[in-house]
Amino acid sequence: MSRNLIGPELQRVIDLIGKLPGLGPRSARRVALYLLKRRDALLIPLAEALSDAAGKITRCSVCGTYDTVDPCTVCSTPGRDQSVICVVQDVPDLWALERAGSYRGQYHILGGVLSALDGVGPEKLNLDSLVQRSAQPEVKEIILALSATVDGQTTAHYISDRLEHLDVRISRLAQGLPVGGELDHLDDGTLTAAMMSRRGLD
Amino acid sequence: MSRNLIGPELQRVIDLIGKLPGLGPRSARRVALYLLKRRDALLIPLAEALSDAAGKITRCSVCGTYDTVDPCTVCSTPGRDQSVICVVQDVPDLWALERAGSYRGQYHILGGVLSALDGVGPEKLNLDSLVQRSAQPEVKEIILALSATVDGQTTAHYISDRLEHLDVRISRLAQGLPVGGELDHLDDGTLTAAMMSRRGLD
Repeated sequence: MSRNLIGPELQRVIDLIGKLPGLGPRSARRVALYLLKRRDALLIPLAEALSDAAGKITRCSVCGTYDTVDPCTVCSTPGRDQSVICVVQDVPDLWALERAGSYRGQYHILGGVLSALDGVGPEKLNLDSLVQRSAQPEVKEIILALSATVDGQTTAHYISDRLEHLDVRISRLAQGLPVGGELDHLDDGTLTAAMMSRRGLD
Repeated sequence: MSRNLIGPELQRVIDLIGKLPGLGPRSARRVALYLLKRRDALLIPLAEALSDAAGKITRCSVCGTYDTVDPCTVCSTPGRDQSVICVVQDVPDLWALERAGSYRGQYHILGGVLSALDGVGPEKLNLDSLVQRSAQPEVKEIILALSATVDGQTTAHYISDRLEHLDVRISRLAQGLPVGGELDHLDDGTLTAAMMSRRGLD
């Protein structure tokens, strides 16, 4: 009954919106109606923006990030350090590191981390091209900037094994107290890591 | 820095998605990346579905619901009772009543309820055409199926005043125990309403 009333065009919009992360069938209906009510201000611009993005945005063939140019803006910026490649799980991690502004080398997007639970094996990750890039003579260091989770660290170990035969330094991000972090609010794992990696006062 | 990296096409998608209800800037980035990763399966179909919806779906000039035909499927179904108009706040309420399947009359979508807090006055609601429809000789009853909230009930009173001069019966949905509701989990207001509207056993 409800399906007939809604009509195939609107039902299709609702079904597709319901596939987006964080949106269920109920919020998809809400979003669809919200869009219909703002036809000129939101629905049409969004349809055009999505179609524009689908047509113009592509993956960088070097690092794997999204951009309208290939190689991407980061890879093609002159003056960035060619001797370091920072391996990240996904595109937002690259954005976060660029926002932080403390890194001026190259990037490599893995596209995920190994996960037995989610069925993500090495063949699903952007690994072969990482090995190829790491073998280039100018590359001296690979920074594994992966999440401090079990899957992230498993992936870091796996990559480090895959790159073992190459003459590159492999590093990972430091673990410890976050800036502004108070000791009694930190979990045991972080405290232990911070204690074990303690450094002399500069 | 981050803005430059993302590029105007993707930034536009993120900005527009961030305007949808329930989505902030962070989840908008997540949704945008999710879409880019599923270009053929989701991004392009969604762009087409939205553009299709924008082109085909229109408001019913009689009741105000969304449909591809005008008058809408409900208004143009032969055999539905022409003597009753059920006034609802918005389109999902019409869908809910049609799902319930116990009503076979006409509908009228208000497009909201009066709300001093949100600055919704009578001029923002679909009220004039309700008064016109209610004045038609075949119309005998107006059911105010509005939410049992302060704003909903204020709106019901206001509409009832506006229709007072007409020869129509004005009714509202019963308040009381929801089906399956247990007494000790109900709020005082509902219990009081259920007690005051008590009926003799059939």
